Amino acid sequence: MTQPSRAVYRHADLIRMLNPRSIAVVGASAREGSFGGNVLKNLVHFDGTVYPVNPRYPELAGLRCYPSVRALPEAPDCVVIAAAREAVEELLAECAGANVGGVVIFASGFSETGKEERIALQQRITRLAREAGIRVVGPNTIGLVNAVRDARLTFQLIAPAPKPGVRSVGIISQSGALGFAMAQAAHRHVPISHVLTSGNSCDVDMADYISFLADEPSCASIACVFEGTATPDRVMEAAEIAWKANKPLVVFKIATGEQGAQAAMSHTGSLAGSQAAYRASFERAGAILVNDYEALLETAAFFAKAPAPKARGVAVVATSGGAAIMCADQSERFDVPLPQPRDAVKEILEQHIPEFGSSRNPCDVTAQVIANPASLLACGDALMGDPEYGAMVLPHAYSYDTATKRIPVFDDLAKRYDKIVCSIWVNEFLGGPGMAETEAADRVALFRSVANCFFTLRAWHDRAARRAAPVPAATRISQPAAKDNAATLIAAAGNRTLTEREAKSVLAEYGIPVVGEKLVQAADEVVSAAEALGMPVVLKVESPDLPHKTEAGVIRLNLNTAGDVLAAYEEVMANAMAVSPPPRINGVLVQPMIPPGVEMVIGARIDPLFGPLIVVGLGGILVELMKDTVLALAPVGKAEARGMIEKLRGIALLKGFRNFAPVDLDRLADIVARASEFAADQAGRIAELDINPLICAGDRIIAVDALIIRAEG
Amino acid sequence: MTQPSRAVYRHADLIRMLNPRSIAVVGASAREGSFGGNVLKNLVHFDGTVYPVNPRYPELAGLRCYPSVRALPEAPDCVVIAAAREAVEELLAECAGANVGGVVIFASGFSETGKEERIALQQRITRLAREAGIRVVGPNTIGLVNAVRDARLTFQLIAPAPKPGVRSVGIISQSGALGFAMAQAAHRHVPISHVLTSGNSCDVDMADYISFLADEPSCASIACVFEGTATPDRVMEAAEIAWKANKPLVVFKIATGEQGAQAAMSHTGSLAGSQAAYRASFERAGAILVNDYEALLETAAFFAKAPAPKARGVAVVATSGGAAIMCADQSERFDVPLPQPRDAVKEILEQHIPEFGSSRNPCDVTAQVIANPASLLACGDALMGDPEYGAMVLPHAYSYDTATKRIPVFDDLAKRYDKIVCSIWVNEFLGGPGMAETEAADRVALFRSVANCFFTLRAWHDRAARRAAPVPAATRISQPAAKDNAATLIAAAGNRTLTEREAKSVLAEYGIPVVGEKLVQAADEVVSAAEALGMPVVLKVESPDLPHKTEAGVIRLNLNTAGDVLAAYEEVMANAMAVSPPPRINGVLVQPMIPPGVEMVIGARIDPLFGPLIVVGLGGILVELMKDTVLALAPVGKAEARGMIEKLRGIALLKGFRNFAPVDLDRLADIVARASEFAADQAGRIAELDINPLICAGDRIIAVDALIIRAEG
Repeated sequence: MTQPSRAVYRHADLIRMLNPRSIAVVGASAREGSFGGNVLKNLVHFDGTVYPVNPRYPELAGLRCYPSVRALPEAPDCVVIAAAREAVEELLAECAGANVGGVVIFASGFSETGKEERIALQQRITRLAREAGIRVVGPNTIGLVNAVRDARLTFQLIAPAPKPGVRSVGIISQSGALGFAMAQAAHRHVPISHVLTSGNSCDVDMADYISFLADEPSCASIACVFEGTATPDRVMEAAEIAWKANKPLVVFKIATGEQGAQAAMSHTGSLAGSQAAYRASFERAGAILVNDYEALLETAAFFAKAPAPKARGVAVVATSGGAAIMCADQSERFDVPLPQPRDAVKEILEQHIPEFGSSRNPCDVTAQVIANPASLLACGDALMGDPEYGAMVLPHAYSYDTATKRIPVFDDLAKRYDKIVCSIWVNEFLGGPGMAETEAADRVALFRSVANCFFTLRAWHDRAARRAAPVPAATRISQPAAKDNAATLIAAAGNRTLTEREAKSVLAEYGIPVVGEKLVQAADEVVSAAEALGMPVVLKVESPDLPHKTEAGVIRLNLNTAGDVLAAYEEVMANAMAVSPPPRINGVLVQPMIPPGVEMVIGARIDPLFGPLIVVGLGGILVELMKDTVLALAPVGKAEARGMIEKLRGIALLKGFRNFAPVDLDRLADIVARASEFAADQAGRIAELDINPLICAGDRIIAVDALIIRAEG
Repeated sequence: MTQPSRAVYRHADLIRMLNPRSIAVVGASAREGSFGGNVLKNLVHFDGTVYPVNPRYPELAGLRCYPSVRALPEAPDCVVIAAAREAVEELLAECAGANVGGVVIFASGFSETGKEERIALQQRITRLAREAGIRVVGPNTIGLVNAVRDARLTFQLIAPAPKPGVRSVGIISQSGALGFAMAQAAHRHVPISHVLTSGNSCDVDMADYISFLADEPSCASIACVFEGTATPDRVMEAAEIAWKANKPLVVFKIATGEQGAQAAMSHTGSLAGSQAAYRASFERAGAILVNDYEALLETAAFFAKAPAPKARGVAVVATSGGAAIMCADQSERFDVPLPQPRDAVKEILEQHIPEFGSSRNPCDVTAQVIANPASLLACGDALMGDPEYGAMVLPHAYSYDTATKRIPVFDDLAKRYDKIVCSIWVNEFLGGPGMAETEAADRVALFRSVANCFFTLRAWHDRAARRAAPVPAATRISQPAAKDNAATLIAAAGNRTLTEREAKSVLAEYGIPVVGEKLVQAADEVVSAAEALGMPVVLKVESPDLPHKTEAGVIRLNLNTAGDVLAAYEEVMANAMAVSPPPRINGVLVQPMIPPGVEMVIGARIDPLFGPLIVVGLGGILVELMKDTVLALAPVGKAEARGMIEKLRGIALLKGFRNFAPVDLDRLADIVARASEFAADQAGRIAELDINPLICAGDRIIAVDALIIRAEG
């Protein structure tokens, strides 16, 4: 179990264990296939000192073998405990006394069994490590790899792979098997610096790994297979460390199923479960989320190789009309511009491209140009040298030895202009000639998927835009006094579910515009109240026991005359009193009838993991049927709130669709931000908020109904 | 250019050329890198007779060389013309006189140049071929491959690949480069029987290729990269031939961009362009459409290997918790059931799976079971032998030689039960150990993508359901007389845009329920008309010049009293007469006010390629903002219309959402089918139809407004 209270380990906290100069293998063995034996084999090329530890051997694999960690000539940076579970606690205690840097524990059978005594055992291990100030990876882990030092600290035999270059990807995976499966990409020359898997995470966990790689110079980007966490705040803290270090963090989130996870969620909140909260959190921290496992490594490898974009324009250079069309399709889908070459560039292209090619963008230079180094260089130079292009996309159709010759040409061009080339492997000869050469190139990134290439280019542009103009930090808009005043009002409410009147008075503290009203208790007050407010009016029975007013028939809209108002009063009161058991009735709310507009909803809920969440959505059918909502962690500032609104699929409705007046989005964002401040302030006191509808027309935006439910207990 | 009038070639029409026993290579040459020389090299293992033809050589590559096709000792089944464009016409004429089976023309510079004389040249070639009854592939083609006979009829040097087995994929591609790029999968043992590319398609085209492979026993499925066609009817005819032959046809459609292609489309019709028409057509013909290029071959290879599903349930057997979770995520996404093992099966699993594994589904048998042949067999047998599972999914994490040993075990199990195993290569060692072995297995299909594995399993289930219960053919619902009566009414209309009254009278011929009305010309008629119809009523100015009544202010709804009706009459007439230039006014329509319901739209347009199309969608904001429409080729039968309705994203709205009554979907489907019959009948006479809204409440479904625009000219 992770420890919620602990700060994320930083690079300096982990460097000894993860970049060790000396490694002790406790349980080293000559037995074929044993964990300890395999680790020794994996360390044969280790760039440092290996100490086998086992009292039963004087020597192992040509190395002097020591009886214990204490007997070693130095305190090792890292100790691998390749011993049975029963021995782990004592061995760790020994390490704790020996000033080691960190310990990797392979053994299984700890808290993952769910058994009480095993959980207690793991907790003792954690305590031991914390008290001694040594880092522990595991237990129940496959281990980890630092490929730069050839430190393969895993019991799985790993075949040697080429050394990673500077543009390497660091892999972090909660799933050990997926992490190591991805890392086998090294066999086809994908540069991978680290494989860090966390097992039971009794001490070091995903957040610590992200934080470490963020500041680790030997990796240029991070690929992370992420399942879930009990402490998302620590993961997001680590993601922000990566953002500050300008280390691209690419995440594939597994366990996205929503089934059964939402029993207690509120009406609006239920539209976006914790999956959406993860997504919102990672996006806020500047991480790049991919939607497919097989996209993860290639997107991360692109980010490891790509400089910041010098322009959004992309030049597509194809030798196949079909590939060019696929690129055009996906550029349209992901809104990646393919600007046409300027005249000067076009002129050069036309000198080299034969009549059956095309010097437009996407460009079909034909196989003739690709096969001719001088022509290829001339065309490539004209395109890469033009400031309107920040990247080149090159679908690679044939996998033959001859085709690999073009890779260094494009790599040199990309380096000359400090740009990036994306080679899309549209060939089905996976692992065929040219693939490894492409992966090994500094400035040529390989993609297997046309769609993911353009998805990644778009993410690259978005990241650059965000770095250039970061979303401003949320600054509080609502009055500081709102927090206490609202808390008092919430506590004073007669029921766990606040009445509309109570809920609106709470929201008003936050400066959220709510419809005005008069509460009347008798028929003879209702007409004068309506006249004072101005016709037309709305009547609603105010009762803590009737939160669903429409269904109960205790609401009447658009009343224009004194006669109508009086009749409606009698009617809603009769309906309320017909309900069984008899509801408590505070009176009848008389409100002005708000003219039509675009109906929105704003919701909030308190997530057990993420805390206060804010949701904005298009109202009515769109929110319920199309689930057109956007979620963020509360509080959000106005700029972030505006960004949420812009992400709605039905945003056109707010921008002047049909005969609706365009909604003042700035004003709307302000209200969303205020609601998010309410959610953050009152997170301990409320379970949910539901403003529905919020009627928007131009800059007239007003909440005409609201529901607040107090937290239980 | 394809010839629209020609029937699709069938297997017998093409067998001589595409499965030749003898091949003549005209322009054969000893010159390194020449087209003719490369073809000779490609044919070195050809299972038949090769005749080099070139008057300049007595012998080539150890074969007797002939001066001309006429001089050959037999009429060859296939002639490859590897000569310059200028010589092609004469050479083809020679072939035409020599009773050859077919001709492949590589030369470029024909109609693809857009030059008039080159287009004429291509047309002469086509005429020559048709008159002589010989088939021509090309010109401007990379060529084709029949891998079963090792007939590699292409000027690109192709390295030999393993012979395909019985479960092979036939590849068809409009893009030559993509077709051959895909086919290089043969180097990693993907069984591929044919690579058929069509070039300029002066004679044989994509439709012919599909039809040929549909009945070709050496391929078990077809993978097709499709760009577009001037004659979609022929492609769909071919797709139906494949359906009848039970040969799975998997299609990836490129050129999906919609930009600028829709200028002249109708309001409703514009919501779904020709991309949707292609999709609807292929789906109607039973083809499987994939969304990504890289999914095409793996989905086709699955269908080549998979028997019909014996059950929808799928068992996931993983050695990685992460991979198991990814499978669960995607099974949920694609609605592929993962039923839990029954007690008897579970008992067997528990005997073999250690405590840190899981004998639920997805099942984590752990590396321990996978490494133990006896346990693996026992677990696999228990799962595969259970009738609740039709397929097994096996994520393959490690790519080492030892891991490949499990493949024959699973292949044997799948064969024993006549089921299929999907091995998902979650490893990034593309081309690593085990990948080729998996591809070569009979009943183990390889996927690189978890999502595409479950997408494909779903498509497999859907295909089986469709084969078991085919969508019944459309039988005409509307009266036979409707066609002529409606044609007369359309012709008689005063304007190209019919008035609402005219349009509704046309639709009424087809039995489409339209709102009743009275046309009045004077204020003194309007009240009695309203009283005769019953209040509340609607007034609408009837004018051929005011198709957009709401915008013109010439429509008033929900009029309850004689006074209101009279006032509204004056108002709408005043508004109409204020329009400039003055519109022609037929009078004012008085209609009963239809009570609220779910608003739908039904549209039709006549596509220049696909002919009449029918569109159904949810009305109001949903159709315009969310583009929630489904399109089909008209006419559709009731069953197909029902299927269209069920595909709407907002279908819940029709099934009793909130306080809406459930809509009688059978009745709605009936109306859609009738509208589609109208579109099909009147395809030559109309440009578009727009029924908007069609108000639906329970079984009361009625068109309250309609627009018909006549075809131009």
